[in-house]
Order: sequence, then C-alpha cells, then structure tokens
Amino acid sequence: MPSISAKGLQMPASPIRKLVPYAEEAKKRGTHVIHLNIGQPDIKTPQIALDAVRNHTIEVLAYSMTEGSEQYREKIAAYYAKKDIQVTSNDIIVTTGGSEALSFVMGTIMDAEDEIIIPEPFYANYNGFATASGVNVVPIVSTIENNFALPAIADFEKLITPKTKAILICNPGNPTGYLYSKDEIQQLARLVKKHNLFLVADEVYREFTYEGRKHYSILQEEGLEEHAIIVDSVSKRYSMCGARIGCLVSKNKEVVQTAMKFAQARLSPPTFAQIASEAALDTPQAYFDDVIEEYAERRNILISELQKLEGVKVAIPQGAFYCVVELPISNSDDFAQWLLEKFDVDGKTVMVAPAAGFYATKGLGENQIRIAYVLKKEQLISAVQILGAALKKYNG
Amino acid sequence: MPSISAKGLQMPASPIRKLVPYAEEAKKRGTHVIHLNIGQPDIKTPQIALDAVRNHTIEVLAYSMTEGSEQYREKIAAYYAKKDIQVTSNDIIVTTGGSEALSFVMGTIMDAEDEIIIPEPFYANYNGFATASGVNVVPIVSTIENNFALPAIADFEKLITPKTKAILICNPGNPTGYLYSKDEIQQLARLVKKHNLFLVADEVYREFTYEGRKHYSILQEEGLEEHAIIVDSVSKRYSMCGARIGCLVSKNKEVVQTAMKFAQARLSPPTFAQIASEAALDTPQAYFDDVIEEYAERRNILISELQKLEGVKVAIPQGAFYCVVELPISNSDDFAQWLLEKFDVDGKTVMVAPAAGFYATKGLGENQIRIAYVLKKEQLISAVQILGAALKKYNG
Repeated sequence: MPSISAKGLQMPASPIRKLVPYAEEAKKRGTHVIHLNIGQPDIKTPQIALDAVRNHTIEVLAYSMTEGSEQYREKIAAYYAKKDIQVTSNDIIVTTGGSEALSFVMGTIMDAEDEIIIPEPFYANYNGFATASGVNVVPIVSTIENNFALPAIADFEKLITPKTKAILICNPGNPTGYLYSKDEIQQLARLVKKHNLFLVADEVYREFTYEGRKHYSILQEEGLEEHAIIVDSVSKRYSMCGARIGCLVSKNKEVVQTAMKFAQARLSPPTFAQIASEAALDTPQAYFDDVIEEYAERRNILISELQKLEGVKVAIPQGAFYCVVELPISNSDDFAQWLLEKFDVDGKTVMVAPAAGFYATKGLGENQIRIAYVLKKEQLISAVQILGAALKKYNG
Repeated sequence: MPSISAKGLQMPASPIRKLVPYAEEAKKRGTHVIHLNIGQPDIKTPQIALDAVRNHTIEVLAYSMTEGSEQYREKIAAYYAKKDIQVTSNDIIVTTGGSEALSFVMGTIMDAEDEIIIPEPFYANYNGFATASGVNVVPIVSTIENNFALPAIADFEKLITPKTKAILICNPGNPTGYLYSKDEIQQLARLVKKHNLFLVADEVYREFTYEGRKHYSILQEEGLEEHAIIVDSVSKRYSMCGARIGCLVSKNKEVVQTAMKFAQARLSPPTFAQIASEAALDTPQAYFDDVIEEYAERRNILISELQKLEGVKVAIPQGAFYCVVELPISNSDDFAQWLLEKFDVDGKTVMVAPAAGFYATKGLGENQIRIAYVLKKEQLISAVQILGAALKKYNG
C-alpha cells in the first residue's frame, strides 16, 4: 500500500473531534448534551441575505471572478470605510471563508520551514494551515492572569530568527475573547517594522466587542501598509458560517498580486454564497445592535455564573464570543470525555472544548477549557450549574 | 518591505490571464471577441438545481459537516453505482470544487520535493497546486500525432525515482480531449501496483464522451482500491462551475482519514452549493442526452472546419470539450496576442488559449492552442473562419 505523506500524518485533528463519538454515545443513551464547545452561533442569518439567494435569477451558474466581483469588493471597501479602514476594491480578494484567506496568506508570505509567531492559546486551525504549508508555528504564551493580553514585546523579540516571516494575531481572540488595545497594536506595528515582518490579523470578530470597547484594526495604523494583512469572514458577522465567504485585505500590492495566483488556481469563490454575502452588507445596524446586546448579556451571565464556582478562574472576554476558563482539574481532555461518558444532571450534560488543543506548547492549557457563548441565556445558566456539579463529583 | 515567499514568486499565473488585458482593449475598440479560450459552458444549469436553492428554507446558515452531509454523500455513492463505480458514502469527502479535492490529495499523499508524474499537456492549474504544496511535477510527453494517447509504460518507468509518489491523469483530458481506454487504465494499474504508487484520476468530464465510447474509471479496476483516488466536480457535469462543489473519492481508508484532517481545517464546503449539487443528482437523463448531443455536434463541426485549414493539425477529442490544435506558427503566445491586438474580420476576432501553458517541459506546445467548444455551432464556424483568415495574414 502506498504511504501517506509525513505532512498528512502530522496534520492535527480538531481538538473537539475526538470527543464527538462520546457526545454521540451520550445522545444515544438519551442524555441531552448542551454544546458549549462550538462556535456556531444560534443567531438568525439576516433575512436580506437569505432572500437574495431565494430570489436569484441565475440560468448558468458560471465561474465568478477569481478575486470576487468588482461590485461586491467595492461594497466590502465601503463597509471597511465605515470602520475607519481605508482600502479600495483592489486591496481585497474574496475567498472561500476566512480559512482560504489564511491559507493564501501562508502560501504568499512563507516557505516551508519559515516561522510565524502566534500568541497562544490560538484558534486551533492555525496549526492545520501551518502544517499544510510546511510552516512552523512559534508560540508565545499569553496568560489567563491578565486576560490573555499581548505578551511583552521583549518576549516576541527573543523568538525572532532569520526564519521569522510574520506575527499572527486574532483580534478579538478566539479562544481568548481578548481585544487588543490601540497601544498593543502600535507596539506590534513598531516590532514588525523594526524586524521587517508581516503582521497578519484575523479580525473576523471585529463587530463583537463589549463594555463600549472599540476595535482597532491593524489597517487603521498608519505606516503599516506594507506589513499588514487582514483575514476576514462573513461567518460570524452575519451568522453565515455555511456560506464560506471571507476575504484577504492588504495595501501591499505584491501580497495581493501573489495571493491572486493562489486564488487563480482554485478558479473562483462560490457564487451563491457571494450573492448572500453581498446582500448581507445591507443588513441594518439594528440587527447588529440586537445581536451584540444579546451576546453581551450572555457574556455577563456566563461570567457571573462561572465566578460563583469554587476554584474556577475566568478570563473576562472583551470581544468575540468565547472565554477560556481554568478549572480545578489537571486534565481537561479527560474531564470533557468524562462529562460525556459518565456524568449527567437530570439527563443533561455539557460538552466543552479542552483548551490544550489551542496551545502549541505541550503541557499548557491542560486545566483549561474554552466555552462559546452562542447559546441562549437559560441554557448557559443551566450549563454552568451542570459544570459546577460535575466538578464536585469529578474531584470526588 | 517584507518579502514574498519563494513559493509565491514561483506560483504560475494562468496561461490565459496575460491575454485578458488585450481582450479588454479589443472590446473597448468595439471588436467582438469570440472566446475559444475558456472552459465555461454556455449550457443551462439543470432547473432542478437552481430551484432547490431558490426554495431553501434556511434560517441559520450554519456550518455543514466537514465531509459533506451524509444524505448528499449517499446520493453521490448512488450516482457512482450507476456508473459501475462501487463506493460508499464513507469513501467520499465533499470538497469546494475539484480544485480543493486536488489540493487535499497533494497534501495527503505528498511532501515537499516529492514527485508526481503527469502526462503533458495537462490542466494548467495542476502546476499551481503542485507549487503551492511544494511538490515537483514530472511531465511525460504525450503527442498530438496519436491524439495524446497514454505514453509508453516504459517511458513512465524511466521517470520513476524514490521521490515518485503518484501518477496523475485527467480522463477524459483537459486540454487534450483524450479518453483513456480500459487497456490503458489497466497498464497504469499494473504500473502503480508494481512501484507502489498512487494513481490519481481527475474524472470531472466523465459524462462527456463521443462516438459511443465508454468511460472506464480507475475505481472500476479491481485490485486498485488502495492506489486509486478520484478527483471529481459538479462544475462541468451540470454546468455549475460557480457552485464550487467537488469530491475526493478513495477506497483507501488512510487516504480518506488523512484528507479529512485537511478538510477539518477549512471547516466545511459551502452550504447553498451543496443544496444545488444534491438536487442536481436528480437531473433527468434527457438533460445529459441533449447536452452530449449538443457537444458532439459542436465537436464534429469544429473538427471538420479546422481540418479545412491548411497546415493545421487537430487532435481528435473523444471526450470532454476541448481540443488541442497545432498551427503553422512558431509562437502561439504571440499569435494569440496578435489576434486580440491587431486582427479582426468585420469587427470580430477570436481569443484562444496558447498551449505552452499546458506543458511543463519548456519549449513544448509553442505552436499549439487549446480550443474549448462550449459555444454555439454558428459561433464555432465563424471563429474557425476568422482563425483561418488570421493565419494567412499572420504568416504573411
């Protein structure tokens, strides 16, 4: 039998996937599983986007433009202008999800064995795209004690080698919920300019910030034009994860021209999803106000409920809809499996994402979990109560 | 300014793309450009597929399953059964176009510097996916003299090294239109088993065969289960290029499990496109009968018209909807540009795809072009007349 690639063997499996069979077993036993583990919002997709697809008049479902239609990209540029991000349609390549944008970025700026520094914990799939591109992720630890704020610049500098090509941040962060301040972005800006690196920011949660905090994009930072690359997506913004539309944005023309060559190889992004995404840009502000109010309430309830539990430490999220929680346990992989296999309260249990999968450094995050607050408040309250009862029993 | 990757610089641009500005200029001058260069069919997408999307009842456009929905994959398996290809839903991963399937295959079976042997001329984007994966394409020449039939197995064997991991064929071929015979597939089967290689077949044009010829899939060949990987797509089959749905099919469980890890990193294929593609499987046979009759007529007319031109050699296509044509010129890149820049007949000219971009060996294909017969018969006749007049003027 011919053999699989070394790269294929190294490709990380999703940190949640190994729990899936246990969740399925639990459901078969009749246990109700509350999913705190997934980033799939329950929020309705804007009607305007769904209707645009229902009203399509396509007769030949042809390839679209490789970079996305001019009209759609102009509307995206106008969206950014409203966020004080000044770009033109030529700075934008529409991609098949933020995932593809990330994959194009990796190919465009890095060769095999090159290094990208990422504050950990980070979105687990960054590992997948790095492995697929043969790129080495160099983690830099951020800690729950200060809500996963930016690590000291001096610590970044210790990690920079001739192989370092970029720093990647997720802002606001999945799984941390941390929102980088303008000052932190400016510290990073000085760093990448000093060392001639790219600064890549995954800003897919841009809209979701709390307590009046304002998102500061890397593309708002003057003088960073040649260094900054944004990865973006409609998935969370409009609760349209299934569309698979995102974009790559950069003022660096060489980056855009090179990413276009990767884009040309895959021909074009999906047409129906572009129709939905273009229409979604006309979503009224009231939709976001409602959604953000809803997330803010969920966040507040989740945090206050978690803080009632003994021995539990919560990173206060300032953005996105995740938080990392430290539990009085030593192995959250085992605990998460136990929750599904052996525990329930009145026929209900919870599924959580063990945090070790969000760290590149072995041994970190083993007493942490990630919770996504994409469920209704009552469910969140119930889930935290179950978690509390579970911890008591698990710790004997 | 931070620098682009070496890989990014090496990424090939589309062989047609450099002509696009000349085509745009010609159109601005008021010249009508007949596009013989593109593989975008003018055939209508099955109504059943378009309607399924119009009638969607989605409220939350959520992620679908990474591998595509069970229901869709079961229907795909049933489609294959009708083609005498025996697979189950577990052997199938739904992908974002055949493009993504190819990219997953490259990652799954090959590491950087590994080699894949591909008969040339071949679909130009194979080069892009190989470059993106750091894989080396080793071309083996097939020739217009015998319609681009399979090169001698002895010639393949001369190219096999310890780095060789796979042979990739496109059957029927883009750009050649060649349909491999059962005997040729069996020769390849013996070869890959002898040398323990994978055999990857891009079978996206499976339905389009002419003169009563029957397609023989690599997955129909007994004993090839561990070696065979099919790349497939709905794009051409249902004239749904803009859907961006394809699949990877293999009976080799390790291949499917590993490809799933690449698939998990990008989360899921596009939902609306899956709705369209699943519905498309219920397209009545009459649709295909009509489409194939239409292509067969176009092919016959195109061939007979081309054969009237002096000094022109045509590879007779037996499948797909392309043919490679040798012209009495020395540089088809220059000729194609000249057609757009300097030539017209009554305000009309043609755009062709120079064939050099379909070869990996430098210097090959420079007197050849690829013609896609995805236009109406009258347009094809007119286009060949323009080509004939152009050759006379160009040559002097």
